[in-house]
Amino acid sequence: MSGDGKRLRPALMLLTTEAFGGSIDKTLAAAAAIELLHNFTLVHDDIMDRDKTRRGRATVHNKWDINVALLAGDGLVALAYETLLETPSHEILAISKLFTQGLIEVCEGQAMDIEFETRDHVLTEEYLEMIGKKTARLLSMCAQIGGLIAGANQEECDHLNNFGMSLGVAFQIQDDLLDITADENILGKDFGSDIKQHKKTSILIYALEKSSAKQIDEIQRVYKQKEITATDILTVKNIFAETGALRHAKKLADHYFSTASQSLNKLADRAEVTFLKQFLNLVLNRKA
Amino acid sequence: MSGDGKRLRPALMLLTTEAFGGSIDKTLAAAAAIELLHNFTLVHDDIMDRDKTRRGRATVHNKWDINVALLAGDGLVALAYETLLETPSHEILAISKLFTQGLIEVCEGQAMDIEFETRDHVLTEEYLEMIGKKTARLLSMCAQIGGLIAGANQEECDHLNNFGMSLGVAFQIQDDLLDITADENILGKDFGSDIKQHKKTSILIYALEKSSAKQIDEIQRVYKQKEITATDILTVKNIFAETGALRHAKKLADHYFSTASQSLNKLADRAEVTFLKQFLNLVLNRKA
Repeated sequence: MSGDGKRLRPALMLLTTEAFGGSIDKTLAAAAAIELLHNFTLVHDDIMDRDKTRRGRATVHNKWDINVALLAGDGLVALAYETLLETPSHEILAISKLFTQGLIEVCEGQAMDIEFETRDHVLTEEYLEMIGKKTARLLSMCAQIGGLIAGANQEECDHLNNFGMSLGVAFQIQDDLLDITADENILGKDFGSDIKQHKKTSILIYALEKSSAKQIDEIQRVYKQKEITATDILTVKNIFAETGALRHAKKLADHYFSTASQSLNKLADRAEVTFLKQFLNLVLNRKA
Repeated sequence: MSGDGKRLRPALMLLTTEAFGGSIDKTLAAAAAIELLHNFTLVHDDIMDRDKTRRGRATVHNKWDINVALLAGDGLVALAYETLLETPSHEILAISKLFTQGLIEVCEGQAMDIEFETRDHVLTEEYLEMIGKKTARLLSMCAQIGGLIAGANQEECDHLNNFGMSLGVAFQIQDDLLDITADENILGKDFGSDIKQHKKTSILIYALEKSSAKQIDEIQRVYKQKEITATDILTVKNIFAETGALRHAKKLADHYFSTASQSLNKLADRAEVTFLKQFLNLVLNRKA
């Protein structure tokens, strides 16, 4: 927890409370809870993905062992709820239900992600459903809880939900891009780890649609290997560039960022959306 | 969830509600939630303990793989909270906090249990703290939540807490005994699995205190092996019998059963404790 994570989720929650004129003091517990919950998903996902580093440090199961990481993750869920339940709000039951729904969908999304690894073909719609659950739901939950604590009404919560979902999908597609294009030292995790782990990202799905027979053979040869080398990753990256898959992913991310921005515009009458627009731009321009 | 588990925890919760004159309809959601939470602990513990069977069936990580079991466990926690939060009670916040405290201590207890496996010596007090967290806390939580839903006051909840804690400690010591003395077919899991997994049970701790130098050597020889055979288990079982450790564990369990019964007597003025006494006897006389 002391690492240099972006604290994206608590920041979004606190900013949403502020955007609705609420006091962030009341949101601090829930904001800490979502960061704990997010870290739970990282610790368990790192076990499943066999990732060796995270944010430039050894992952828990790598530094200790799988049992320690398994229990640490479980403990983080428990501490997340303990913290969440300290939220001083009459909406604590609704907040707890949103939080729990987020946890359920994160598990479902991770299950889909893991299952996709063993499949030859994944549809774009399936990919979007997966990242909706795995990534976007927690962001939409943050915006909704931040709003609820500040007294946002149901209609406003619906817009916040849409905002968070679009932002989350954009964020994940951007993540797919960063995995293959960012500097490993800035990224803080293995370069090309999605390819190494046979992940079906938006980039791969598009590239397969646009590839020549020879390029498809090449991609499939790499993805069928148990151990994927740095050279393999560069081969795949070149095909991603040649087929326009990298450009396409960038366009797709931008589309969702723009949809998120439109959801914010609908709130402009009753909330200070500048805070949230600045947050959106911060995410849009991130390098890791 | 469709297996033939004893449903001990939901039964205790429902009986406590009835003992205080409450309607079990209001307790059904919380009772289902605790069974889901208990099953989460089983699925994750089975990964950590490398158990191959549970309740006569293959464990999740054995039937599928570790990733599936890890995620199934995570999903069970999420579903447990989803179900709990449907409890129709004004005490839902207090109930959720008790539930969360139970989850935290279960994780702490499991961490102690795993850590003890790698230690040469564990004190009886440490063992009792471990099973208090790992086993007894969830039972005390069941009694308290069952009482809260039926309107039990703070003093009554304190007695229910004491009752559940004593019952849980008795239950776990009995479990240690059954692991080495029960019929494997009735037990539904591997005979002597505690010894195979280098568990520091109440029986082993006492046996080490009372053993001759030769017996200690023999026990240590077995526990130092990575793979422990059926013959090894019988050797250790004989020492457990010779040193009086089996008899002592039986006495210790009976002591805690009796303490649990005394806690119930303190509730006799305002609750129908016969239900709970019958439950206690049911546990006391179990064969698996």
